Amino acid sequence: MSPPPRFKGIILDIDGVLKRGSTPIPGAAETVKRFRELGLKVVFLSNLSTKSREQYVDILRHKLGIDVSPDELVLATSATADYVAKYSRTRKVYFIGHSGLRAELEKAGLIIVDKPEEAEFVVAGSPFDERGYVTEDNKWKFTGAIRAILLAKARFVAVNPDKLFPGADGKPIPGTGTFLGAITAATGVEPIIIGKPSKEIYRIALDKMGVKPHEAIMVGDQLYTDIIPAKKLGLTTVLVLTGLTRREDLDKLDPETRKMIDYVFDSVQDVLKIVGGS
Amino acid sequence: MSPPPRFKGIILDIDGVLKRGSTPIPGAAETVKRFRELGLKVVFLSNLSTKSREQYVDILRHKLGIDVSPDELVLATSATADYVAKYSRTRKVYFIGHSGLRAELEKAGLIIVDKPEEAEFVVAGSPFDERGYVTEDNKWKFTGAIRAILLAKARFVAVNPDKLFPGADGKPIPGTGTFLGAITAATGVEPIIIGKPSKEIYRIALDKMGVKPHEAIMVGDQLYTDIIPAKKLGLTTVLVLTGLTRREDLDKLDPETRKMIDYVFDSVQDVLKIVGGS
Repeated sequence: MSPPPRFKGIILDIDGVLKRGSTPIPGAAETVKRFRELGLKVVFLSNLSTKSREQYVDILRHKLGIDVSPDELVLATSATADYVAKYSRTRKVYFIGHSGLRAELEKAGLIIVDKPEEAEFVVAGSPFDERGYVTEDNKWKFTGAIRAILLAKARFVAVNPDKLFPGADGKPIPGTGTFLGAITAATGVEPIIIGKPSKEIYRIALDKMGVKPHEAIMVGDQLYTDIIPAKKLGLTTVLVLTGLTRREDLDKLDPETRKMIDYVFDSVQDVLKIVGGS
Repeated sequence: MSPPPRFKGIILDIDGVLKRGSTPIPGAAETVKRFRELGLKVVFLSNLSTKSREQYVDILRHKLGIDVSPDELVLATSATADYVAKYSRTRKVYFIGHSGLRAELEKAGLIIVDKPEEAEFVVAGSPFDERGYVTEDNKWKFTGAIRAILLAKARFVAVNPDKLFPGADGKPIPGTGTFLGAITAATGVEPIIIGKPSKEIYRIALDKMGVKPHEAIMVGDQLYTDIIPAKKLGLTTVLVLTGLTRREDLDKLDPETRKMIDYVFDSVQDVLKIVGGS
C-alpha cells in the first residue's frame, strides 16, 4: 500500500511523541521505519537549546533505537544557526548558551565574536546549566548581550522562549526565556524567536524536506507549541496522547482552538492510518 | 534667623545634589551644616543596591567632608531591610545581591536562608558586579528566587528597578532591574519596589525624621525618580541643576509635570533661601 499522494513529509516532535523522559514510546521506532518504507520524508523536531545535531543523533540512536542522520534533525539550535546564516552579512555573532549551540553556529559558517561591539547578531540560548547555575562561560553574557544590542545595534535572535524546565533535581530551573526577560527589560528590544511556538522552526523543517505545508503532517503532544503554529502554516496536525495533553484536556477547548487539531490519536503508531500504512 | 515653622525636615538626594560622580558639589558640605544649625532634620538618600549604611557613611565623610550618622542615611538597601522587617512574620529571607544588602538585612533582624523553599520573602538587589559579571555568590540566585516565589509563595521585594548603570569601563552594565526582568518573565510575579521612583523609600525617610510630608523638602536632580514621587506624597520639591537635568529640559515639560517642581535652583546652596538660612 502506498501513501495517498497528499502527504509527502512528516514532522515528528521528539518529547512526548517518540519518548517520554528517557523512556521510548512503544512502537515508535517501528513506526518511523514504516513511514520511511512508505516513501515519506521524516524530520525530527526538538526545541532543545543546548545540544547540536551530532550530539542528538546519538541520543536517538542509543536511547530510542531510531537511526537518524543529522540532516533529518531540526533542533532549535540548528534552526537558529540556519536562520542567522541566511540573514547575516558579516557572519559575526555574539552567542549565549552551551557548546551544542556554538557547534551549530560554527557549522553554519558563522563566526563567534567575544567583543559584543563587533556583533551583527546576538544569538541567545540558555546561560543556565541543568542544576540552575549560570555557567562559567556565560557569567558575563548578560552584559555582552546588552552591549551588542545597545552599542552595536545587533539583531537579537533566540533559540526558544522556554522560561522554565525541570532541573536535575526535578524542581524548576530557568531556561532561555528567563534570560530573554532580563535582556528585554534592559534594552527594550524583543528577540526574534526561532524555536517553537514560532512558525520559523516549522518553515525550516519543511525546507529541509522540500515539501509544501499542505503535503506535510505535524505530530506533536502539545497544542500551543506543536499544533497551533503548524496548523497556521497549513500543515495537517496530529495530537498524540503519549505526552503532556490528556483526552479530558480537549473537552475544555473552545471550538476555534479545537479545530486546529485535525486528528487526535493515542500514539504515533496510529498516524500510519492516515498515510496508508496500516 | 530660625527656619519658618513650615519646614522641619529635608531629604537630600546624594548623586547630582551633593556630588557628581566622585566630585563634591561646591558648597554642599557647608550647606548641610547650615541646615543643621537651622534646626532642620536631614536625611541623605541613595538608590544604591550594593552598599550598607556603614559603608556609605565613610564615602560621605571622606569624599564629601560631610559628617553623617548611619541613622541619617536612607539607602535603597536599608529601606528595603526596614520594609521587610516590618511585614515579615518568620523573618526568613532569600536574598540576591551584595554584602551591603546582606549586612542591612541582618542588621534589621532578618535571617538569610540558603534554601529558597524556607523563604517568606525574596529580597532582590543586583547579582552583577561593577564589570558586569554575575558574581560567584549569585550564580544560583536566578534559580533560587524562582523557586522561592513559585514553590514557597515567597513575597518578592526589590531594592530598586534600575536596569542599567555605567560599568567600571564606562559602558552599560545590568543592575537590579535587569535581574527583575528575568524573574518576572519566569514567574509572572512583579516585585514590590522599595527604592526610587517608589514612594516607599520617601515614606521611610519621613518616618526616620519623624516629620509629616508637608513639613519636608525633597531636593533632587531628576524629575522621574526624585521630584514626582515626593510631590505625590505631599512634600515640597526642589530640583537642582547640578545633576542630570538641565534648565532647557524643563521647557519641554507639559504643564502638569512642570507643576510637580516647586522650586528650580542652580545648586543645593540655594535651598537655604526657602528655609530662612540666607
